[in-house]
Amino acid sequence: MASSIASRVEASFRKQGLMDTLGARITRIEPGCVEITAPLTPATQQQQGFAHAGLTFAIGDSAAGYSALSVMPAETEVLTSEMSIHLLAPGAGEELIARGRVIRAGRRLVVAGADVFVRHKGEETLIATLIGTMVPVPV
Amino acid sequence: MASSIASRVEASFRKQGLMDTLGARITRIEPGCVEITAPLTPATQQQQGFAHAGLTFAIGDSAAGYSALSVMPAETEVLTSEMSIHLLAPGAGEELIARGRVIRAGRRLVVAGADVFVRHKGEETLIATLIGTMVPVPV
Amino acid sequence: MASSIASRVEASFRKQGLMDTLGARITRIEPGCVEITAPLTPATQQQQGFAHAGLTFAIGDSAAGYSALSVMPAETEVLTSEMSIHLLAPGAGEELIARGRVIRAGRRLVVAGADVFVRHKGEETLIATLIGTMVPVPV
Amino acid sequence: MASSIASRVEASFRKQGLMDTLGARITRIEPGCVEITAPLTPATQQQQGFAHAGLTFAIGDSAAGYSALSVMPAETEVLTSEMSIHLLAPGAGEELIARGRVIRAGRRLVVAGADVFVRHKGEETLIATLIGTMVPVPV
Repeated sequence: MASSIASRVEASFRKQGLMDTLGARITRIEPGCVEITAPLTPATQQQQGFAHAGLTFAIGDSAAGYSALSVMPAETEVLTSEMSIHLLAPGAGEELIARGRVIRAGRRLVVAGADVFVRHKGEETLIATLIGTMVPVPV
Repeated sequence: MASSIASRVEASFRKQGLMDTLGARITRIEPGCVEITAPLTPATQQQQGFAHAGLTFAIGDSAAGYSALSVMPAETEVLTSEMSIHLLAPGAGEELIARGRVIRAGRRLVVAGADVFVRHKGEETLIATLIGTMVPVPV
Repeated sequence: MASSIASRVEASFRKQGLMDTLGARITRIEPGCVEITAPLTPATQQQQGFAHAGLTFAIGDSAAGYSALSVMPAETEVLTSEMSIHLLAPGAGEELIARGRVIRAGRRLVVAGADVFVRHKGEETLIATLIGTMVPVPV
Repeated sequence: MASSIASRVEASFRKQGLMDTLGARITRIEPGCVEITAPLTPATQQQQGFAHAGLTFAIGDSAAGYSALSVMPAETEVLTSEMSIHLLAPGAGEELIARGRVIRAGRRLVVAGADVFVRHKGEETLIATLIGTMVPVPV
């Protein structure tokens, strides 16, 4: 079971061109919890050298979305319907880690969230929190 | 005046590595209204070939943020404090256009939003709407 | 048609005990657009004498929700799934007017919003804007 | 210290006419965490007999706001700048309990949230989660 969830999530993730462009990779998959990690490089920063909110959002949204997909029926894909992000601290460090989780799984909607951390010299700091609505779509 | 606003926005935009990575460019600057356009390519799509929510968010957030910066005092930069996005339709087409606008400019906070459109064969469709809070920070 | 929409919305509204408690009434119904007005009294204010965010939210949410209901199939009721509100100015005056509208009507979800104004000595000021997701539920 | 926080929060709460109208009361105050409880009656329900989203929002917003106030400097009041709410389950039971908490306390902004539970026959169920931005204002 868990392995079929993992292969579904990984197969979908590999088709996301943006995740590849951002250097993001899946670093953990459990039912209801998916983690995505991305390096912090000049190619993904904003004007002051911190992580761009667009990067933070992109991996947080994907972590939340794949957490939702991991509890959806087989033969479905997942789309973000809406998402809100609160940015709590500047993202300064080597990489960002987004930890997604399912908050409530309904048949028609899944509410999911993610916390995004920056890792700097081995220490993690929470920089953003996301919450949003995911909808299953038939493949 | 308008030209000094334009040069501040453009100077800040050029330092955003992520905008360059996404192929995004500023296509209009007026006080309170900044437009950003990005091509839709395999490098920025999600698993079904549509615009990734991360791309839509990134250019919508930048369009809203620079709209806010355009009404802030000189010698400030702008940070996103929070942002919510509603995705209204799949982004299928040649390019995305994010049109930002200031909703309310306060001294400590600016509420700004953006509508994001996809352009396909010359026709534009609204695919997302964003609203959020921007804070001025001294440079 | 329009009159059957109006009677559905009015019948549902009359069952909302909270709207009665707040003194709120429907002041306009058109397909996709519902307006709700509530007096500003000590019973609904916050600690500084302005409209409480809870009042502003309550009538904005109902205006958005009934705007959504007005475009849903008969034999459905509407539930708010999520809603975000940005408060733009203090609500000081005689009454609040919430003007709802449908932003995108899907089969499973309707994205709807509302602008809330305060009326003071005949003049209206925008004090809040809401956007959220409404779901149809069978009655 | 803790008692001066409690008296500030209570003094402000007593001035909120809406909380009195809703029958809401503070049931716990700790630095960074305030709990507000309100009965579920016909006067605060929506059209299907559940808690109105406006009630859930009102006490969640106040719990988050007073959690924020409890960590702000003396001689300040608190205003909600923006708030998003996700409704997770219908509120059916005897009373609602909103548990607020500070997520990040900055000098100019405090990000705070609240979880809202319904209590039915002694059992609590999470029905909503809120997150938003609070701003200190001088009294």
